[in-house]
Amino acid sequence: MMFVNGVSHHLLFILGLLLLAFHANSSSVERSTYIVHMDKSLMPKTFSSHQHWFSSIIHSLKSRTTTSSLDGHSFSPYLLYSYDNVAHGFSAFLSKEELETLKKSPGFISAYKDKYVTLDTTHTIEFLSLNPTSGLWPASNYGDDVIVGVIDTGIWPESDSFQANNLSSFPARWKGECEDGQDFNSSMCNWKLIGARYFNKGVIAANPGVNISMNSARDTMGHGTHTSSTAGGNYVDDASFYGYASGTARGIAPRARLAMYKVIFDEGRYASDVLAGMDKAVDDGVDIISISMGFDEVPLYEDPIAIASFAAMEKGVVVSSSAGNAGPALGTLHNGIPWVMTVAAGTIDRSFAGNLILGNGETIIGWTMFPASAYLDDMRLIYNKTYSACNSTKLLRKVPSDAIIFCDKNGFLYDQVDAISGTNVRGAIFVSDREESFEMGTNWPGVVISSKDAPVVINYATTDKRPSATIKFQQTILGTKPAPAVALYTSRGPSPYFPGILKPDIMAPGSQVLASWIPTDPTARIGPNVYLSSEFNVISGTSMACPHASGVAALLRGAHWDWSPAAIKSALVTTANPLDNTQNPIRDNGLNFTSASPLAMGAGQIDPNKALDPGLIYDATPQDYVNLLCSMNYTQNQIQIITRSKNYNCSNPNADLNYPSFIALYNDNTTSFVQTFQRTVTNVGEGAATYKARLSAPEGSEVEVSPETLVFGKKYEKQSYELTIKYTKNKDDEHKVSFGELVWIEDNGNHTVRSPIAVSPLVIDSGF
Amino acid sequence: MMFVNGVSHHLLFILGLLLLAFHANSSSVERSTYIVHMDKSLMPKTFSSHQHWFSSIIHSLKSRTTTSSLDGHSFSPYLLYSYDNVAHGFSAFLSKEELETLKKSPGFISAYKDKYVTLDTTHTIEFLSLNPTSGLWPASNYGDDVIVGVIDTGIWPESDSFQANNLSSFPARWKGECEDGQDFNSSMCNWKLIGARYFNKGVIAANPGVNISMNSARDTMGHGTHTSSTAGGNYVDDASFYGYASGTARGIAPRARLAMYKVIFDEGRYASDVLAGMDKAVDDGVDIISISMGFDEVPLYEDPIAIASFAAMEKGVVVSSSAGNAGPALGTLHNGIPWVMTVAAGTIDRSFAGNLILGNGETIIGWTMFPASAYLDDMRLIYNKTYSACNSTKLLRKVPSDAIIFCDKNGFLYDQVDAISGTNVRGAIFVSDREESFEMGTNWPGVVISSKDAPVVINYATTDKRPSATIKFQQTILGTKPAPAVALYTSRGPSPYFPGILKPDIMAPGSQVLASWIPTDPTARIGPNVYLSSEFNVISGTSMACPHASGVAALLRGAHWDWSPAAIKSALVTTANPLDNTQNPIRDNGLNFTSASPLAMGAGQIDPNKALDPGLIYDATPQDYVNLLCSMNYTQNQIQIITRSKNYNCSNPNADLNYPSFIALYNDNTTSFVQTFQRTVTNVGEGAATYKARLSAPEGSEVEVSPETLVFGKKYEKQSYELTIKYTKNKDDEHKVSFGELVWIEDNGNHTVRSPIAVSPLVIDSGF
Repeated sequence: MMFVNGVSHHLLFILGLLLLAFHANSSSVERSTYIVHMDKSLMPKTFSSHQHWFSSIIHSLKSRTTTSSLDGHSFSPYLLYSYDNVAHGFSAFLSKEELETLKKSPGFISAYKDKYVTLDTTHTIEFLSLNPTSGLWPASNYGDDVIVGVIDTGIWPESDSFQANNLSSFPARWKGECEDGQDFNSSMCNWKLIGARYFNKGVIAANPGVNISMNSARDTMGHGTHTSSTAGGNYVDDASFYGYASGTARGIAPRARLAMYKVIFDEGRYASDVLAGMDKAVDDGVDIISISMGFDEVPLYEDPIAIASFAAMEKGVVVSSSAGNAGPALGTLHNGIPWVMTVAAGTIDRSFAGNLILGNGETIIGWTMFPASAYLDDMRLIYNKTYSACNSTKLLRKVPSDAIIFCDKNGFLYDQVDAISGTNVRGAIFVSDREESFEMGTNWPGVVISSKDAPVVINYATTDKRPSATIKFQQTILGTKPAPAVALYTSRGPSPYFPGILKPDIMAPGSQVLASWIPTDPTARIGPNVYLSSEFNVISGTSMACPHASGVAALLRGAHWDWSPAAIKSALVTTANPLDNTQNPIRDNGLNFTSASPLAMGAGQIDPNKALDPGLIYDATPQDYVNLLCSMNYTQNQIQIITRSKNYNCSNPNADLNYPSFIALYNDNTTSFVQTFQRTVTNVGEGAATYKARLSAPEGSEVEVSPETLVFGKKYEKQSYELTIKYTKNKDDEHKVSFGELVWIEDNGNHTVRSPIAVSPLVIDSGF
Repeated sequence: MMFVNGVSHHLLFILGLLLLAFHANSSSVERSTYIVHMDKSLMPKTFSSHQHWFSSIIHSLKSRTTTSSLDGHSFSPYLLYSYDNVAHGFSAFLSKEELETLKKSPGFISAYKDKYVTLDTTHTIEFLSLNPTSGLWPASNYGDDVIVGVIDTGIWPESDSFQANNLSSFPARWKGECEDGQDFNSSMCNWKLIGARYFNKGVIAANPGVNISMNSARDTMGHGTHTSSTAGGNYVDDASFYGYASGTARGIAPRARLAMYKVIFDEGRYASDVLAGMDKAVDDGVDIISISMGFDEVPLYEDPIAIASFAAMEKGVVVSSSAGNAGPALGTLHNGIPWVMTVAAGTIDRSFAGNLILGNGETIIGWTMFPASAYLDDMRLIYNKTYSACNSTKLLRKVPSDAIIFCDKNGFLYDQVDAISGTNVRGAIFVSDREESFEMGTNWPGVVISSKDAPVVINYATTDKRPSATIKFQQTILGTKPAPAVALYTSRGPSPYFPGILKPDIMAPGSQVLASWIPTDPTARIGPNVYLSSEFNVISGTSMACPHASGVAALLRGAHWDWSPAAIKSALVTTANPLDNTQNPIRDNGLNFTSASPLAMGAGQIDPNKALDPGLIYDATPQDYVNLLCSMNYTQNQIQIITRSKNYNCSNPNADLNYPSFIALYNDNTTSFVQTFQRTVTNVGEGAATYKARLSAPEGSEVEVSPETLVFGKKYEKQSYELTIKYTKNKDDEHKVSFGELVWIEDNGNHTVRSPIAVSPLVIDSGF
């Protein structure tokens, strides 16, 4: 789920509920969709292709089925998709009996039920210091020639963000298509939006006879339009959200090419469709996959994103994904996949403000997103015990219509706003300190002020003879401090099903992000019943952080075509900034604004220009990931679901992946441990270089690194080192995350290569 | 008054009422303001200046006054302004007794009580065919170096329209000032807004002890900001009125310099202040005076605009004024001053639309100015006899909140909108054919459709099983036909106090004009109590037409520094277009959409590019106007009030001014007449030219012209002709205006010089 202001906020929560309903529905039919993984090497020679093979298997199941059919398909087994690129296998609509038969087929590896996926939501360009004169933008030509595949809810092709102005042709290697469909034809693609496909066989299978209300790549939710424009939207002048955040909107990689793979429909969102979308994206030739959604509570071998992204990684495709919006509790993260980049969400140094000016001249900056230039000038200010609870529409109807009312803090801000919007109160002042309140689209002219500022207003209102106030709306304040902070909602590591790798990897701007929206979903409301639509929307979520990171990955791909996905992730991790704009450690809004741990923000806020030139890289090959998988208590079949091949060998299982960060875990029974990590870094700087280690140990642990100096004779030379964490449990440590860092600093000061170190409780024991 | 959408509409009507109240108020004090005209030639030699002289006169009145004084001025006579440029004399606060004494002073000509003034825009650039590649814009360098003085309600200097981007310095002859005042300091002027002054002694005198709420040139009403930006505003990208009329806003003369003379205050609007403002404008060196206001029911010698503009004319300053908004009855016009340009208001080929799309796909274009992107998509359409009267808020509260209601036409559109805005009805369809309804800012999401289209909706709503509708707001339609039409409200000639000259002179765009506005006056409302402000406003009135003509006059001044004000007016009149964009005669919205007479629109819609090169000019000198005045039954004193000098002589009285149009009047007793007009035209084309007359006689009249060919040997040569109208009354003629035209057509077709001919009833007998 994502946080959305005003109307959509509520709509999307409803959507979340609908999903559960659909899921329940799907179990009431005789058959279900299963995703089936097969060993391609065991395909009988009689079949010319794997599709032929899979079809034949399903056909053999059909011939055994004697059930009478009413509509020709929901009462007989059928094939949804054949997967060939990111998975070997297919999805099919099967009864339990048919599944049992299938399991006896030669080449069968595994099958599991289709699952539903959880969705996660432009000044950020400046906030990330991207600029035309130096650094990553010019070095990558703004991502020109890089293709970003977005797996999402579809796209609104008419949006200004997807126009092709000043782009010419597209990369010759592109094999994608712009599929015809409902309200969507192939001419709607262009040199910016170079492909658009849609996948809903899983939805249809789970809901037999369902009418797909938008049977095409067209977005009906806004989410995919927002994420696509964030990653690679073209320049749009004079964008704003009802006057807030106004300026030129553009994606992080404004010249990158976009391809939409719509896998989410109003009628459902299923793993089989997600897998099909990613399968096709890799086949089409995308360079980056941006996927702002995730599957909760699944092991890697049943997570279609983990499965598909392994193949993507093998082909050099970077997969960037969202951590989820289930924070702030530990262990809530999804997409904690070793070969994927997992992105947490942070706040932006921007605030949507309403200036409250009291009659005595005092000015207080509040928050508001009231979607119009409401005029409240020198109005009577009312504060009294009868009205100021602001919880009764009936009472509030008695407030004079030419007054601004001050509402006491009572903890139910939404209720207060709702109560007022049914009245003729001209304007209101609310009090709240909660992060959500800064994001709310008040549907009545009002501002939210902090409880710190409230006494000033109360004092004035109760002592002045004729208290009055002015509120100015549509104010956008830039450079607010401290920023970034870790967003309350962002899901925290460790990854419940794969906790041995530090996740999330990095943090990117995710709160109150302005990007394109669909015109068919209202984005604001005035009063109880005036709904408004807009071309841009401001929404929050790790779904919005992910495409920021995807865009930066696209820029890095454009600047370094020779780097592996692991190298690109490493560059982003080791250059990420753990400090905010006050030069203090980034704070965690979900942890009483204390310093954020790497389990909240990974290495910190992405720093694109530094990532262009990281000095050292922690690289990893597909075999390294296989060695990691082999170290898990996975079966060979489970591993092969991911690797799709037996060519990888498990002779060298190794849980210690060459990752640019460190995590050591303890559980309730741990009293002490010593854990040693082996790492190899590659010099990607120009020429010889000497680095020295600077260590900062997590509280309660000792850390050592050896050697403490790394000397590289030339570019691409590798050097190895060992890091040891010695942990002894302290009484106060109960479920406490402690953290530190290892920084390799080049002698000349040109590069610093930082890795976060976390010591964390093992929140969910998933058998690791 | 002007027509304003939504809120301001009402506010300004209230303002009109306030004015009357102030006027009544002023008569309740012992003293009143009088404007006193003096013969400067009779100033005793003992005085060094006229101010000294006038002060001395007032002082002598004071010494005779024995009334005790409480606040030092309202109980003793005092001097408000000395006038020296456009009038000789002063204004003073006097009792009747003091006035009687004053009348005995040497040099006294006349005195009359101060009066209140009646206040009468950007696709219009395209509508008037102004363009950067040819014609008047490049020929005049966009009005650079021309100074337009605007007599109005003040100005909002921070408006984007008044920024000086790409202007450098200002004309060296400029003597004006940027006066300090409340919320206004001299640094607020720049190379665009080169002067700003304010005049409110008349207001203060009429309302002793009054607190001037904005004692500076700052605009508190929006009117002056709107007119100034229309005449000479700089380029402003992305201007719109809540999404309507969006585009680049700019004045007609975008490089002209502006000087504001604020003479209208929230506390009152008086002749003495208007006269003072115009006096100073002429002294400061303006080239054009734009004055969107007028005095009703006054003879020329008591009309401060007539008086001041005579002096302006003498100095070559063009005065452009509004005809008033008292139409559509005949004889309602003000500013019918022979030496002034009087501007009527027409409609624009633009419509602010809401598209109504019925569930069966049928689309109807309606009108709306709902100030937000309301979202009404595929909603239930309700039409039934219980609700569709739409006149009871109580009943309408029972309408489902997810529906669009169709409201039957009942003649009280405002009441229907008001009734609905107190409910939760999601949207509404209204029916009306009245011009005002196209202009109304519906404060609830709704569209107005024509009664022609209503049956389509009713039929669908009553026959479809599940009728539904979508309404799309913020639509702007350009190129609507027919346009222009004469606006309903524009005041009609003949001029009641000076009917012998055909007025108005020309028509310019006045309806639904987009121009800058002040942020402190709400321009729209949603529901009963959400008020909105905006940087631009769309309003209607001759006040908006006048600055269009003033801007064109400024461009003509910039292209022809040698032309007299009469020549500039002549060029605009003889090139004006009597046809609309369907090539049919312009229609009159106040006359059942039949062809408009010259008493409604003068010669027709201004055509700036043609006016640049009119071929022939009807010129007039100050003495010509004096000869006209001498032909009236005015006393010598009355004439001298206007001329300020006895140097003009009355030896050659002549009612037949060399004017570019013709009017013959009949009254109830007229059975027939023959009227002959003498005209002299100056060839302003390049070199020799031959023109032939083409006549079209008013219905019921015969018209002759002699000679029928005019041959000019060279540029600036003059030729004369005679035009005779023979009129015989017909039974059906009762109060009917008939009209025709005389067109001089150059042999080579390069120039056509058209003069309208009107035969009109003398609606108000003012002793002419």
